[in-house]
Amino acid sequence: MIRAGIIGASGYTGAEILRILSQHPDMKVTVATAREFGGKRISSLYPSLGTVYKDEFSIYERDEIAEKCDVLFIGLPHGESMKIMPELFSMDKKIVDLSADFRFDDPGLYEKWYGVPHSCPGLMGEAVYGLPELNRERIAGARLVANPGCYPTAVVLGLLPVVEASLVSGAVVIDAKSGISGAGRKLTLETHYPQIADGITPYAILGHRHQPEMEQILSGVAGGTLFPVVFIPHLVPMNRGILCTVYIHLKEKMGDSEIRDLYNDAYGDESFVHLLDEGECPRTKAVQGSNNCHIGLVTALGGEGLVIMSAIDNLVKGASGQAVQNMNLLCGLPEDTGLAVPGLFP
Amino acid sequence: MIRAGIIGASGYTGAEILRILSQHPDMKVTVATAREFGGKRISSLYPSLGTVYKDEFSIYERDEIAEKCDVLFIGLPHGESMKIMPELFSMDKKIVDLSADFRFDDPGLYEKWYGVPHSCPGLMGEAVYGLPELNRERIAGARLVANPGCYPTAVVLGLLPVVEASLVSGAVVIDAKSGISGAGRKLTLETHYPQIADGITPYAILGHRHQPEMEQILSGVAGGTLFPVVFIPHLVPMNRGILCTVYIHLKEKMGDSEIRDLYNDAYGDESFVHLLDEGECPRTKAVQGSNNCHIGLVTALGGEGLVIMSAIDNLVKGASGQAVQNMNLLCGLPEDTGLAVPGLFP
Amino acid sequence: MIRAGIIGASGYTGAEILRILSQHPDMKVTVATAREFGGKRISSLYPSLGTVYKDEFSIYERDEIAEKCDVLFIGLPHGESMKIMPELFSMDKKIVDLSADFRFDDPGLYEKWYGVPHSCPGLMGEAVYGLPELNRERIAGARLVANPGCYPTAVVLGLLPVVEASLVSGAVVIDAKSGISGAGRKLTLETHYPQIADGITPYAILGHRHQPEMEQILSGVAGGTLFPVVFIPHLVPMNRGILCTVYIHLKEKMGDSEIRDLYNDAYGDESFVHLLDEGECPRTKAVQGSNNCHIGLVTALGGEGLVIMSAIDNLVKGASGQAVQNMNLLCGLPEDTGLAVPGLFP
Amino acid sequence: MIRAGIIGASGYTGAEILRILSQHPDMKVTVATAREFGGKRISSLYPSLGTVYKDEFSIYERDEIAEKCDVLFIGLPHGESMKIMPELFSMDKKIVDLSADFRFDDPGLYEKWYGVPHSCPGLMGEAVYGLPELNRERIAGARLVANPGCYPTAVVLGLLPVVEASLVSGAVVIDAKSGISGAGRKLTLETHYPQIADGITPYAILGHRHQPEMEQILSGVAGGTLFPVVFIPHLVPMNRGILCTVYIHLKEKMGDSEIRDLYNDAYGDESFVHLLDEGECPRTKAVQGSNNCHIGLVTALGGEGLVIMSAIDNLVKGASGQAVQNMNLLCGLPEDTGLAVPGLFP
Repeated sequence: MIRAGIIGASGYTGAEILRILSQHPDMKVTVATAREFGGKRISSLYPSLGTVYKDEFSIYERDEIAEKCDVLFIGLPHGESMKIMPELFSMDKKIVDLSADFRFDDPGLYEKWYGVPHSCPGLMGEAVYGLPELNRERIAGARLVANPGCYPTAVVLGLLPVVEASLVSGAVVIDAKSGISGAGRKLTLETHYPQIADGITPYAILGHRHQPEMEQILSGVAGGTLFPVVFIPHLVPMNRGILCTVYIHLKEKMGDSEIRDLYNDAYGDESFVHLLDEGECPRTKAVQGSNNCHIGLVTALGGEGLVIMSAIDNLVKGASGQAVQNMNLLCGLPEDTGLAVPGLFP
Repeated sequence: MIRAGIIGASGYTGAEILRILSQHPDMKVTVATAREFGGKRISSLYPSLGTVYKDEFSIYERDEIAEKCDVLFIGLPHGESMKIMPELFSMDKKIVDLSADFRFDDPGLYEKWYGVPHSCPGLMGEAVYGLPELNRERIAGARLVANPGCYPTAVVLGLLPVVEASLVSGAVVIDAKSGISGAGRKLTLETHYPQIADGITPYAILGHRHQPEMEQILSGVAGGTLFPVVFIPHLVPMNRGILCTVYIHLKEKMGDSEIRDLYNDAYGDESFVHLLDEGECPRTKAVQGSNNCHIGLVTALGGEGLVIMSAIDNLVKGASGQAVQNMNLLCGLPEDTGLAVPGLFP
Repeated sequence: MIRAGIIGASGYTGAEILRILSQHPDMKVTVATAREFGGKRISSLYPSLGTVYKDEFSIYERDEIAEKCDVLFIGLPHGESMKIMPELFSMDKKIVDLSADFRFDDPGLYEKWYGVPHSCPGLMGEAVYGLPELNRERIAGARLVANPGCYPTAVVLGLLPVVEASLVSGAVVIDAKSGISGAGRKLTLETHYPQIADGITPYAILGHRHQPEMEQILSGVAGGTLFPVVFIPHLVPMNRGILCTVYIHLKEKMGDSEIRDLYNDAYGDESFVHLLDEGECPRTKAVQGSNNCHIGLVTALGGEGLVIMSAIDNLVKGASGQAVQNMNLLCGLPEDTGLAVPGLFP
Repeated sequence: MIRAGIIGASGYTGAEILRILSQHPDMKVTVATAREFGGKRISSLYPSLGTVYKDEFSIYERDEIAEKCDVLFIGLPHGESMKIMPELFSMDKKIVDLSADFRFDDPGLYEKWYGVPHSCPGLMGEAVYGLPELNRERIAGARLVANPGCYPTAVVLGLLPVVEASLVSGAVVIDAKSGISGAGRKLTLETHYPQIADGITPYAILGHRHQPEMEQILSGVAGGTLFPVVFIPHLVPMNRGILCTVYIHLKEKMGDSEIRDLYNDAYGDESFVHLLDEGECPRTKAVQGSNNCHIGLVTALGGEGLVIMSAIDNLVKGASGQAVQNMNLLCGLPEDTGLAVPGLFP
């Protein structure tokens, strides 16, 4: 049994790792730290976990982590993860970091968008961007995985086949819709129920931190070409789920079946990425609680345009499920171990 | 007091006219017909209206309408309105039709999208498309107004200033999000609560009937140019509201203030169209229950792109509120009579 | 035009008074204070009000209030209202206080439940409990009205006829359900969207501050008898609305029609309290945005039991609408001035 | 591997058995019938199941069931199950029936509440009421299990310890709240999104079919005493979940710790029934997607009253999870096989 530690376990992504690992046949949680809630029972914050976790959150202690854990998940906020990473990295354990701290190649880009200089730029080169459908082999050989953001996961999975095939012309429009759990457990006016229920609103227009992340990855796939992206996220009154509706121009006219073949080739063998049949529309509810990504396609503008719709659960494939998928790879386990679970519908 | 009849009053748009006219100082409802519910009290379907309407729905009778009503609102389904329109039109009353039957100029286009031949194409020419911000004078002189669809209202109000100024280059991407009341009172699997709650889904992808309607109007504004539109509507788990996020390329680079001046010029004197300050995002909840349209703007792609976000209540500005606004114009009343009401928030 | 000031206008009840008074023919808001938001535009917090209020919140200043206002609504939190009340009371203006500070007769009871000693117990005797259906005449002659809590409004309106007729035997069970706006604009974990959406939970079990308030009023109606109440409130994932399901034993068996006669006698002439027909169930959505209270009745246990269901909008009849109703009485206006508005459904 | 057939698999409870059995180590679905959808892929109705079920629904055929299945789950509507039961029962397979057809001891009571005479009253005596926490041994030895209704499950689990200990005095008040999936996949006006979202309403007041079911079981536990129950269910705008708030009078005063001891004795060894700590409130969201039942307790009226709050997921412990729990018992498997899963929160 692989012994897993979760550093920063009291947020929604930490709790989701606890939930997922409770069903994992080869991995179990031995330490779950939470600075603010050390000594409080896990179930006092998450009654949903009460039947499977009887323990308390603990306060981070170097030696305890070193002794009791084989692998580590980092669920700390951005900016906190990098402070502790040199110490963790020196322990020589497999690490999946769910923060944004190691997603960028360029410390300057990190500082620009996250507002603080990177405290250990030397470790940035150690981190592999943890999108298995893109980076499977590199992840398997890594020691540190930077788990992708929720929006970039949905967007990049949606665009990967057409970008790899160099089919995109001009700017890409990404209209994204997210459930409120994506904003985390921290209280804000935008997550206050009466402000957000029974309505929809765009937010962080053209200034969301996930935009440079998806640009970096997509540009990399495209061979370094700068990839202009117009990204508008919206808050939808639902708990979980991201739907990205992506609009592109194709370099040349293509037929529906040609496009579908491309996606089938790319994803036919994937465990978690599922191309929907023609005419079917992805819905976030169908992937809720699962690590699945549903993709729908429709050509537009007489074959010169393409609309790609991708749906994930932001807390699973968009965060903690993908983290476990990455950890499976790091540990040499089948990638879908503990994750082959259908969505909860209705 | 102007005596109003509502033909087809039991659906959500009919009930919304009842609600709005209960607050109108110069108009009151004298007949409300509903084939299926004739003889049933209005409040048995709509308990919300019980304190202001004690009467029953009636069955349509030509003579009763002719005698008791000065003006008519038609809330019948598409295809039903045109059957009765010649009879109503001959009564020489002001009419606002909320169905799609008289929105198109071309009977062929109507038949293509609504699946039946138009039964009185001769009356199509009598109808004025009822978007006051576009057609105010023509509406005031008309006898029959075709009230716009909910999506076209939000989309055209969002695009009008840039289309009138011939600033749009290439295809327009319209990512629209609607509350579930937009689908009406008729039961369908897509409006069944457990199928749709706590999730978001696109639907009618590239095949929604409102697409040719907005194309016709926008092409007309643009001077007949064919206007390629990519239109993807989504169902959002909320009762009311439409948010349209519209992405365009500009023919030439423009600054934020230039664009804002354009919109201020266009809408500065409008009662119901309200340009939000820079950085503010329109939210459907802010216009809920009101006839207002909130518009937000942000330039993209270094000034070559523009994102326009417009929010309305689909049942008010997107249907019954606009119908009353049109009727005010037809009757020579101030356009905002009975409609100058703020949104219900939270 | 009566000039109204709102002291503490940035919370949900303050904003709701702004919304309601925008439609009032005889009253208009001249000052709206908000300590935290002084100088910020009202519409920056409440974009829904942007079309009717262009002004800023101001900081409370004694002289400005004295000069610019004829009447005052106090929307301050509990504990804050009593600090300022002596100063306001000395201005000799009609005052409706929406806080709990003047609802109790007994300063000791106030201190027990609100945790602080009352700072001006001498003014408690000046205040009339502002439930017009109970206290209409006394309100009309008062200078200071203590506007009831949301739960007590729904509960007392539901129970008034049977308590006045001395029909209740033994303990009263009150199972109450509230929308989240009842918790106000202040951020808490219990109002954080992901904690509360798509689920229901009881809270403050047997310890809610509204329990002693309803006990005091009901005991008063019952002639001083101690009235044992079991009160369990629940948080329901909806914005607005309170539904109280009240279970009582009757002193003697009664038939449905006898009970209904009692309620019809009590409420037949009321503008806002509406007895539903047999078999109809009150729904909060039917009173949303309105000052109405819908009451449904069903006898149980072979006529020895009675279930009373009452529905209100917690922000209207449960707070700001009732405050305006009280102010109308204070000013000698017809009680329903500006309030005869149907619910917003769907 | 035990081969399971689901007769009537297209409704929500059928689909939920499919979901749960996809994670069961010892049982797999070999046939899933659906009269209306025979030949259609399971994933076309339930995209959430697409990654684990590639097959079609089939049309019921006696021989196929006899050959391909070891055990049977019946997900047919009430009235349909009994028509087919004699044929199925003669196959000599273990059967769990999720309909109400075999829950009653008395055919007359069935006919009174379900409106049709029972077609095979002789089989009613074969059926064991499938609440494992009450009937574990009898279930293990049965051939036919009548799976309880969702409300009776939550109510009986809440009341069992006090009823077994003969502590209840007088009538029991049950205020129940249910998510909308409890009404099934069939379209009705009450499950139409705009009618039910953002509001709460009681329904079927004092006439719900689950009332005689819970009365029968509770009277049985109480030794045959007639048990007066006042049962008011409410529709809550959420997908899944039942919360029952039960109010009783105790025969004699009891302290909190005495009561808690009683419940700990009753449920301390149960896998799925979990007593919350003092002051904790059960929330449906904490059991969503799980087979757990959370119970909270608070004494009232100075120890003479007790409020019991129980929360379940209506589709899991209230239907399909309990059905699998029963089938585990029938098959001699550990009761929690495939069911030891935490809730999905948020």
